[in-house]
Amino acid sequence: MERNDHLLSLLQPRTVAVVGASRTSGKIGNVVVANLLSAGYQGKIFPVNPFADEILGIPALHAIEQLPHGVDLAVVCLPREQLAPTLERLGGVGVRSVCVTSTGFKEVGREGYYFEMEAVEVCRRHGIAMLGPSSLGLYNAALRFNALAVPSAPEPGNIGFFTQSGSLGMAILDATAGKGVGFSHFISLGNKAVVNETDIIRHLKDDPATKVILGYVENIEDGQAFLRAAQEATLEKPVIMIKSGATPEGARAASSHIGAMAGSEDACQAVFSQSGIIRVGGLREMFNLAVAFSSQPQPGGPNICVVTNSGGAGILAADALVRSSLVMAPLRGQTVDELKRFLASHASFYNPVDILGTSNAETFAKALAATAQDPLVHMLLPVVTPSCHADLEQVAWAIARQASECAKPVAACFLGDAATVGAREVLRKAGVPFYDSPEDAVRALDALFRHAEWMKRPLPVEICYMSNTFQAKDVLSKAKARGFSELVEFQAMDVLKAYGLPVPKTVLARTSDEAAQAAKTIGYPVALKIASPQIAHKSDMGGVVLNIKSEADVRRAFMDVTNRASRIKEAYVMGCVVQQMAPPGSREVFAGFKRDPQFGPLVMFGLGGLYVEVLKDVSSRLAPLSLLDVGEMVREIRTYPLLRGVRGEPPVDFRAIEDVLLTLSQIAVDFPEIVECDFNPIMAHPGGALVVDAHFILGRRSNGD
Amino acid sequence: MERNDHLLSLLQPRTVAVVGASRTSGKIGNVVVANLLSAGYQGKIFPVNPFADEILGIPALHAIEQLPHGVDLAVVCLPREQLAPTLERLGGVGVRSVCVTSTGFKEVGREGYYFEMEAVEVCRRHGIAMLGPSSLGLYNAALRFNALAVPSAPEPGNIGFFTQSGSLGMAILDATAGKGVGFSHFISLGNKAVVNETDIIRHLKDDPATKVILGYVENIEDGQAFLRAAQEATLEKPVIMIKSGATPEGARAASSHIGAMAGSEDACQAVFSQSGIIRVGGLREMFNLAVAFSSQPQPGGPNICVVTNSGGAGILAADALVRSSLVMAPLRGQTVDELKRFLASHASFYNPVDILGTSNAETFAKALAATAQDPLVHMLLPVVTPSCHADLEQVAWAIARQASECAKPVAACFLGDAATVGAREVLRKAGVPFYDSPEDAVRALDALFRHAEWMKRPLPVEICYMSNTFQAKDVLSKAKARGFSELVEFQAMDVLKAYGLPVPKTVLARTSDEAAQAAKTIGYPVALKIASPQIAHKSDMGGVVLNIKSEADVRRAFMDVTNRASRIKEAYVMGCVVQQMAPPGSREVFAGFKRDPQFGPLVMFGLGGLYVEVLKDVSSRLAPLSLLDVGEMVREIRTYPLLRGVRGEPPVDFRAIEDVLLTLSQIAVDFPEIVECDFNPIMAHPGGALVVDAHFILGRRSNGD
Repeated sequence: MERNDHLLSLLQPRTVAVVGASRTSGKIGNVVVANLLSAGYQGKIFPVNPFADEILGIPALHAIEQLPHGVDLAVVCLPREQLAPTLERLGGVGVRSVCVTSTGFKEVGREGYYFEMEAVEVCRRHGIAMLGPSSLGLYNAALRFNALAVPSAPEPGNIGFFTQSGSLGMAILDATAGKGVGFSHFISLGNKAVVNETDIIRHLKDDPATKVILGYVENIEDGQAFLRAAQEATLEKPVIMIKSGATPEGARAASSHIGAMAGSEDACQAVFSQSGIIRVGGLREMFNLAVAFSSQPQPGGPNICVVTNSGGAGILAADALVRSSLVMAPLRGQTVDELKRFLASHASFYNPVDILGTSNAETFAKALAATAQDPLVHMLLPVVTPSCHADLEQVAWAIARQASECAKPVAACFLGDAATVGAREVLRKAGVPFYDSPEDAVRALDALFRHAEWMKRPLPVEICYMSNTFQAKDVLSKAKARGFSELVEFQAMDVLKAYGLPVPKTVLARTSDEAAQAAKTIGYPVALKIASPQIAHKSDMGGVVLNIKSEADVRRAFMDVTNRASRIKEAYVMGCVVQQMAPPGSREVFAGFKRDPQFGPLVMFGLGGLYVEVLKDVSSRLAPLSLLDVGEMVREIRTYPLLRGVRGEPPVDFRAIEDVLLTLSQIAVDFPEIVECDFNPIMAHPGGALVVDAHFILGRRSNGD
Repeated sequence: MERNDHLLSLLQPRTVAVVGASRTSGKIGNVVVANLLSAGYQGKIFPVNPFADEILGIPALHAIEQLPHGVDLAVVCLPREQLAPTLERLGGVGVRSVCVTSTGFKEVGREGYYFEMEAVEVCRRHGIAMLGPSSLGLYNAALRFNALAVPSAPEPGNIGFFTQSGSLGMAILDATAGKGVGFSHFISLGNKAVVNETDIIRHLKDDPATKVILGYVENIEDGQAFLRAAQEATLEKPVIMIKSGATPEGARAASSHIGAMAGSEDACQAVFSQSGIIRVGGLREMFNLAVAFSSQPQPGGPNICVVTNSGGAGILAADALVRSSLVMAPLRGQTVDELKRFLASHASFYNPVDILGTSNAETFAKALAATAQDPLVHMLLPVVTPSCHADLEQVAWAIARQASECAKPVAACFLGDAATVGAREVLRKAGVPFYDSPEDAVRALDALFRHAEWMKRPLPVEICYMSNTFQAKDVLSKAKARGFSELVEFQAMDVLKAYGLPVPKTVLARTSDEAAQAAKTIGYPVALKIASPQIAHKSDMGGVVLNIKSEADVRRAFMDVTNRASRIKEAYVMGCVVQQMAPPGSREVFAGFKRDPQFGPLVMFGLGGLYVEVLKDVSSRLAPLSLLDVGEMVREIRTYPLLRGVRGEPPVDFRAIEDVLLTLSQIAVDFPEIVECDFNPIMAHPGGALVVDAHFILGRRSNGD
């Protein structure tokens, strides 16, 4: 979607046509008009039906051509065969956007796919923003605009929601009704033939009526655009998403469902990490977080205070806390003294504050007031169990009062069900989020905190290295001209050098004399490696000798290695590479990238050797990388302590590793023809890093780059 | 608790006295009598109150002494000061068990603790089984016996439940009311001064009315007894538990709540793994699993079939599946053909079966029938979203019918809320578990499968090694006589040899001549290590030389090492140990145990070197270990692939490692005076394993062993 004004027409329509409007109750063309009317939409509504004069009391037009020019949005409820011709006619009267509720397109296979492509072509030509096809419609609270294709009315509120699955969307409306969850927008994306999640996120980011953005998607259309849009949005407001099909089984189900190729999960996870989107696993968690974000202020820090009338529930809250990024607030002496003044002597005055099961609502209120005013407390979590001593509605009032007064996030947990109905109603009206388990409440507060931290991050700085790309281009062209699909080691090293990467001193020696000379120049000890474009795994065939300390040994190694290689028939042997050895105390790491068809170049980092293979201990981010990205990548692997140094070892030079990663990102951006690239090993040491071996796989220029 | 018959009196009382029965409504002594009456208890009830002639229509006794001899159970509702004297009088008339609802004991600190200890002493003397103090009472559905201290009536059913937290127990009763959750027993443990979780599990295991055992505890009283009881129980029926205070924060909260020292989390986790208890993190998950176990049969395998009218929900189910031990059933050709007969052509005929949002209840019924009869399907998961095309109650009936006919576990997921009320009611009556998210349903079915697998396990075989314990005892006595708190290396080796453990050939050499002679006997290459009881970390002070290949080198190394050691003032140097080197291709592992004060010896295993330190990649189990235990321990570490061999390496000898672990377990059992023991490194290789170094720390005989 390029034309932003047409997207605006779709999401904020001042006039709407319903093409295929129907007089028959239950038909989609009837439901849409009925929804528009009962929502109280103030814009002009034009039902279009060749045979009806009026629909639900509104005058109907018999043909599209009778529409005034430039209607903002047309909802199309016609069989798929009629879609393309209808769009053509709508384009003719200058309609700016459409929402297509018809089904039977890409989701049903090849035949539907052609109908969809035809429609897309017409939209492109007329610059029409199309939602769907197979959309269940859309809703905008501010405009009192309900064009859903099912008889359902979302509650108004500040949650902007979009969903790729219409049926899940409907289930969500049913599940959230009456629970204090209100929507600013409710958008069923359908097949995303034109308008997709990226467009919606861009719009909702600037929508003043939307405080939280929520989304359910099964695939992401354009990874790089999505990443940029999401990065911008999360600096404005929280974005919470489910990306299903995260697992191989799920992705298989996803492909059969919407006929979309699911992006690789690694790349997808990288997008979420890099963009600050809060990724959740299920619908309950999504709305648990949404209600907290939609009502609560940003916390000033990670300190939480639990106030409970059940010791057991307090322990469950403490357990949940440790699995989060929050901490139990240390209460200041004044607060503890205050609590001691009115709590029983065997209550717990420290966090979690256990006011005991025999406490009444007044005691609850006092304990909440005492803890809420403690500057060491950033968030409040009252955990309440039914008790014959406390009126739960009164407790709820006390919580609501604190929430409105203290300007700190409050999430309430009420255990039980029947006994807590009244209390929950009080909190719902007061706009305080409530949960039925301490874990859920903690998870919600944790999300508030993490989002607040995210917004404090400095803006990502993308580094652009000044480098000799001409020289690198030259190496690549030559290799391609000779028909190589990979670069030989010394060619690879030339690319690295062009980018100013630290490489070991390396000389190609064609004879043992040259090798001896090279070793002398470089300085002992040296390594010797076979040079042949056909031999990728050098050590497997005995093509590598390390730590050679004398001229005699260099000569012997040269003969050995080239002899062994000459036995491999298809290998063209150019000689041997003589190379400087990494300093002692080096730790082996690796870095590389591969191009994901949906998301672009995914840069990976990990410890070298067996760790990667066995532990899959790898971090990854999409290029282009920022300084923050590489800092996180290096530190989030599990084996990070080995880099920091154990048993008194000095740490490696992290800056040097980060430089390598940034350069790798730059290479990925500069040369789309490199489809895969491996720096392995990189010897990281306290004084720097050496890229000892590099491997480039060339391919055709991949599209999208 | 020793006297099993008295426990029976407590949990299955034929007669009950209420001591402190009251005429005042709302008082505990009144609530208990009212509960007993309204539940319809058929046994004899004796209210005891010095001033009342009748309570709630039942004749009251004025004194305990008026009770007939040998009443099964007395519920005591009196202030704490009166507890011990009351128990004394109850003992006098042969009361077999008591439930103490009074509070103010251990949970309030030192003073309460003394009252509690006094009560325990009286119970011991009279052999009275005491539940509590600070118990909220107990309930037995079969006897229609409700002696809860709060006005609450659990629904009857087949879930046997016990809880250490009374308030959580009450919240649970409130939360589960009307949700198809029924209890055979509901037991509030209180302070567990006499009767504890182990007693209850033992009893519920044999209780025919109990199909599932559920428990909430904050600490475990006697780890070894609990482990044995749980191991026996889980072979009869599922045991699902929350052990809170699992985290440092939680444990701190737990200690202040019940004044009980929380066991170390590692040991606790080991108990759960070894006993087959299904450990859950929260109340919702506990009851989600319980309803499935209480109503569904055992699955015949891990294959699940998802039938849904929402593609999106199907993907969420598939995503959840991959995080479980279940798999998507491959449907057989016949089933797919059958589905094709009545589903739309663009439905998904493969698992997840997407019958499309336009399907009605009849189509749902047919799809369920078709998939349920497929022998490749072991479990059925219908995932339903509200739709204007399908009557959800009819869908629920179809699910209920399949569940009753197919003899396979069925768990239903209904997304939404208001629209699904009727459907949920149908399922509740039909005894089919239902969930509001696919993840919850999958987790429940997964638990059914894992429990079925657990029950198929062969009985644990405890291995008792024939070993020369006399010789080991001798070594230990001598070390202790000389005042050592640790064993020196050669002493440690003697213990290993006594147990027949594979150790490298090792000779203690006091002079360099002896060292040279020893090396000759053992065969080169050898290792040389300093021998001094005061030097624990030999390599840190340069006390280890590896891979020595000649006599000259042995002599030189001996002088170097002993010289270096002589500079450590407090070190008494006995000479050096000359040792056989491990074969090439060995992988370093470690094993050891330490005694947990609550659970006894905890045996640990992991890869040696940096892995343990950095990755905390350790498995652990409580001794005594079974063959199954050690098999699991070796395989559940993340670095297991390194032992199995990567890049063409042969696997290590797993039997040899398992033997070492079993022997370690035996040593832990045989010698309670060894408080900590480390075998590190153990060199595991394809032909066996060598325990190269061992470290024993001696202490006083710890209690409980």
